[in-house]
Amino acid sequence: MTYRAPLKDMLFDIRHLAGIDELAKLPAFEDAGFETAQAVLEECAKFNEEAVAPLNATGDREPSLWRDGQVHTTPGFKEAYRQYSEGGWQGLQHPTEVGGQGLPKTIGAACGEMLNSANLSFALCPLLTDGAIEALLTAGSDELRSTYLPRLVSGEWTGTMNLTEPQAGSDLALVRTRAEPQADGTYRIFGTKIFITYGEHDMADNIVHLVLARVTGAPEGVKGISLFVVPKFLVNADGTPGARNDVHCVSIEHKMGIKASPTAVLQYGDGTAAKDVNGTGPGAVGFLVGQENRGLEYMFIMMNAARYAVGVQGIAVAERSYQQAVAYARERVQSRPVDGSVPGSAPIIHHPDVRRMLMTMRAYTEGCRAMATVAAAAYDAAHHHPDAEARQQNQAFYEFMVPLVKGFSTEMSLEVTSLGVQVHGGMGFIEETGAAQHYRDAKILTIYEGTTAIQANDLVGRKTARDGGRTARAISAQIEQTEGALAAQGSPEARAVADRLFAARKAFLDVVDFVVARGKESPNAVFAGSVPYLMLAGNLVAGWQLARSLLVAQDLLRSGQDEAFMRAKIATARFYAEHILAKAPGLRDSIVEGADSVTALALDAF
Amino acid sequence: MTYRAPLKDMLFDIRHLAGIDELAKLPAFEDAGFETAQAVLEECAKFNEEAVAPLNATGDREPSLWRDGQVHTTPGFKEAYRQYSEGGWQGLQHPTEVGGQGLPKTIGAACGEMLNSANLSFALCPLLTDGAIEALLTAGSDELRSTYLPRLVSGEWTGTMNLTEPQAGSDLALVRTRAEPQADGTYRIFGTKIFITYGEHDMADNIVHLVLARVTGAPEGVKGISLFVVPKFLVNADGTPGARNDVHCVSIEHKMGIKASPTAVLQYGDGTAAKDVNGTGPGAVGFLVGQENRGLEYMFIMMNAARYAVGVQGIAVAERSYQQAVAYARERVQSRPVDGSVPGSAPIIHHPDVRRMLMTMRAYTEGCRAMATVAAAAYDAAHHHPDAEARQQNQAFYEFMVPLVKGFSTEMSLEVTSLGVQVHGGMGFIEETGAAQHYRDAKILTIYEGTTAIQANDLVGRKTARDGGRTARAISAQIEQTEGALAAQGSPEARAVADRLFAARKAFLDVVDFVVARGKESPNAVFAGSVPYLMLAGNLVAGWQLARSLLVAQDLLRSGQDEAFMRAKIATARFYAEHILAKAPGLRDSIVEGADSVTALALDAF
Repeated sequence: MTYRAPLKDMLFDIRHLAGIDELAKLPAFEDAGFETAQAVLEECAKFNEEAVAPLNATGDREPSLWRDGQVHTTPGFKEAYRQYSEGGWQGLQHPTEVGGQGLPKTIGAACGEMLNSANLSFALCPLLTDGAIEALLTAGSDELRSTYLPRLVSGEWTGTMNLTEPQAGSDLALVRTRAEPQADGTYRIFGTKIFITYGEHDMADNIVHLVLARVTGAPEGVKGISLFVVPKFLVNADGTPGARNDVHCVSIEHKMGIKASPTAVLQYGDGTAAKDVNGTGPGAVGFLVGQENRGLEYMFIMMNAARYAVGVQGIAVAERSYQQAVAYARERVQSRPVDGSVPGSAPIIHHPDVRRMLMTMRAYTEGCRAMATVAAAAYDAAHHHPDAEARQQNQAFYEFMVPLVKGFSTEMSLEVTSLGVQVHGGMGFIEETGAAQHYRDAKILTIYEGTTAIQANDLVGRKTARDGGRTARAISAQIEQTEGALAAQGSPEARAVADRLFAARKAFLDVVDFVVARGKESPNAVFAGSVPYLMLAGNLVAGWQLARSLLVAQDLLRSGQDEAFMRAKIATARFYAEHILAKAPGLRDSIVEGADSVTALALDAF
Repeated sequence: MTYRAPLKDMLFDIRHLAGIDELAKLPAFEDAGFETAQAVLEECAKFNEEAVAPLNATGDREPSLWRDGQVHTTPGFKEAYRQYSEGGWQGLQHPTEVGGQGLPKTIGAACGEMLNSANLSFALCPLLTDGAIEALLTAGSDELRSTYLPRLVSGEWTGTMNLTEPQAGSDLALVRTRAEPQADGTYRIFGTKIFITYGEHDMADNIVHLVLARVTGAPEGVKGISLFVVPKFLVNADGTPGARNDVHCVSIEHKMGIKASPTAVLQYGDGTAAKDVNGTGPGAVGFLVGQENRGLEYMFIMMNAARYAVGVQGIAVAERSYQQAVAYARERVQSRPVDGSVPGSAPIIHHPDVRRMLMTMRAYTEGCRAMATVAAAAYDAAHHHPDAEARQQNQAFYEFMVPLVKGFSTEMSLEVTSLGVQVHGGMGFIEETGAAQHYRDAKILTIYEGTTAIQANDLVGRKTARDGGRTARAISAQIEQTEGALAAQGSPEARAVADRLFAARKAFLDVVDFVVARGKESPNAVFAGSVPYLMLAGNLVAGWQLARSLLVAQDLLRSGQDEAFMRAKIATARFYAEHILAKAPGLRDSIVEGADSVTALALDAF
């Protein structure tokens, strides 16, 4: 078994941190209590451990291949995708009205983590389909919804997001792909899109591209961008795939990691007669989503779902890297332990520095999982709570969490997968071992769906400065309550965690004040510290959730429940506080006192 | 030009931090003053920029290939190596009596950095040859010295270090390769060595393996290990390569990075008659170096030279990654700067977070270069100062620096090369861009020649606890003097740096006290913090050297010398203090107050 889903930890978070049984009191989720969660997660674990995880190394060795416009995915992917689709996994979190199971994101996120741990490259296809579903649910016409949603939700068809062009990466104002309106209400799309994940593949009958383009005569900049559905095959009246549309994959990228995931360059309407659609002339036939010039707004719907999901990818790859490192550290015998606890050479897990590495990997992973699970519960409440104020509060909390889940969980995954290689020593650098793949795969996570800097801009601008720091301070107030509970609990572990949590929260508040006070007058100073602020905030929230975990674990320990697990949770929470949360005050100093030195070097001196 | 040697920065360090003109007062180095350094470095830069750097990407795309026991290196490597050898670069730091140029390490280290920036994979071959030369110089018999040294120093032959076996990585006590004494005073070697860098290749006429093995009947453990010279071709009486020895490359590894460097599995004496040497029976003919059972001691001579050199590799790959990131950041246009300094989309170097990333890369690189240069000067003085006490003090300083140069410079290179990819955004993940190669290449540096944990054990045990913290505190006293000078200087930059330096030094002293006081009674607690201690100490020393640089730069600025360079140095030193040195107090807390939580988790709970 190359991967075993951390079911206990996931269910602990879902039950005790996210409060699934509270969520199940909402009308939308009345069947989605703890028992449902447990049943779904167990089934999901089985599928991913057995059918998907073994294909991870295969995908690295036999990446997707482009030949004459076709993409041939890694051997085994097509069959695994068929099982994924037939198992109903694509529809897990989507509404029952369109064929989904309507389960909360709180459960869906855990399933997403498993799929990503099993195979990051494979999981990207469903991840993008989820984004397409979200966009159509929110902004698609009835016709678009009825044509595409059932097939997307069932997994028969897959979806993509087409934002990037060679000159337009983080800066979507530079998008040039154009959409020419036609007499029949459709559009013809012309342009080149790059970095399109699963932009072409052989696992499904149709691919539904969601494409940003500029309608002829639209304003410059982001206010002139519209969103279109462009299917690979136009859809017949009976719902089956029909004529081939004029969108073609001209190449796929040769990447450092996630090699099985085809990253396509797509050409929309290359103007050759041979590519005419149904003999009606060149250009890919596109269908407007929502209204013209509101494309960016809709795209953000997809984007936000995708950002959260990429954060989960960070947790997922960290978990798998951790499991592999633990297995190696138990097996590999080398040197006598410094404390003399073993008389001769011992498995390296006995060496303190190996323990430090494994604990760091574990603590980051559990901390970020707890943060993501709580964020998911807020999303669920924000969408389904009967009380408007509760919806609004949960929405604000969730929106604050998205850049943290995306930014912090992916940044930590770089450190974790690096430690994963390090634990293996020289063997880690040899590709056959598999540890290096996680290190290479993870590096995309801090880049796509908005780099860490883009997440940090979002945190600084939309999530902190815009409401004058209100949401940030509300979160701080909640953390303060946890500090109080830790003090009341009074165990040495609780007190140690409370001290670090207090120091980290003070550091956070200083930075929030700095961002709010200086944002207008000194944007350079504030944005110079944006990524460190994100790292501090993510660190704090993950540490806070582990602190809550510690409180729960100490309670349950007293009632004699699963002693080994509870003790481990307590030890992990304390390690996190003393070795990861402890970084927060230093970050505060750099942000608040060191802003000017970031931009002091003359441009031509670099 | 894909790489341009940072000559100004190197010469600044060599002149003002390492004091090359003081060094040139020593009899051994009377021709090696600043002007010599400048001339040698300029020549070296030209060679590496033009002949070696362009082969770096080639080596990644066309790695060394194994076929039927032969290794075919990357196209172009053989010719570049010929030029390297003919240029006399291999002999730069080696004694004139064996054909070298006898230049100080202070100059040699800078040349080593350039070669490694140009091509990490290529540079490994000379790096290992240097180690073999050191070992033979120190412990080889006259006959071994006269047979091998001239050809190694000229670069006609290359050297290797054979330590690792499948079961013996960090733990050399487990070495099983055996040496059977022969009547003629030679030995026959039998066993398998793995991870042998340039263990087989086609760039030189002979390969001189230095091999750890156990003489029949020797004691168990590290006290029964001897060191042997095992040439690929036995040497004829006239000094030319003769009969093929019974050592063969049975495969090379498929690695994540440094792909052009062949990492060989070597079989010594496979026992088949066909492999007999000169019809004298099986086993590779080996020649004892020094005395039996003192192999580990001699191996450490090679190892220490190699550890320092691997630290320089970290600086080298960081420098190249930085240069590539700066070039991209100047070119890539994306988004309007937050401060409105440019009316429309601007090169991304205008964005504060890109500046933060580039400054981080730059500050780490310059800080570690300064640290390594000063350490090299101490090495030179330790070997050639006429005064015994000065030699001893310099030796102690150098030995303290080796784990920091190796450990800290390579760990920082992981962060720097990761940022190098990040600056490129999505393009960084595409292999054609080249940024990803540095990220993949760098990961071996924290592993080979002793992992970071092994360096940290050395720092804790031999370098700190053994002398009761004396050397560590002597270094602290020197740093305190720099703080005084900064305070006296009084500029805002000097004061800001002094504050951070003081805080970091206090953190360091606390940890030194902790290590000295607790080492015996609580080895787990001390070794749980060994790597964080190394990171704190390396951070401090690099920051200290940049603080010294700031003082020099402010002086020279007043005298009007190279204003742009001096201002850049000051800005970089301040950035380092505020954004990197600022991490030190947090590390202290984790080490001193968080030791127990590292090993608190039950072994079976992982």
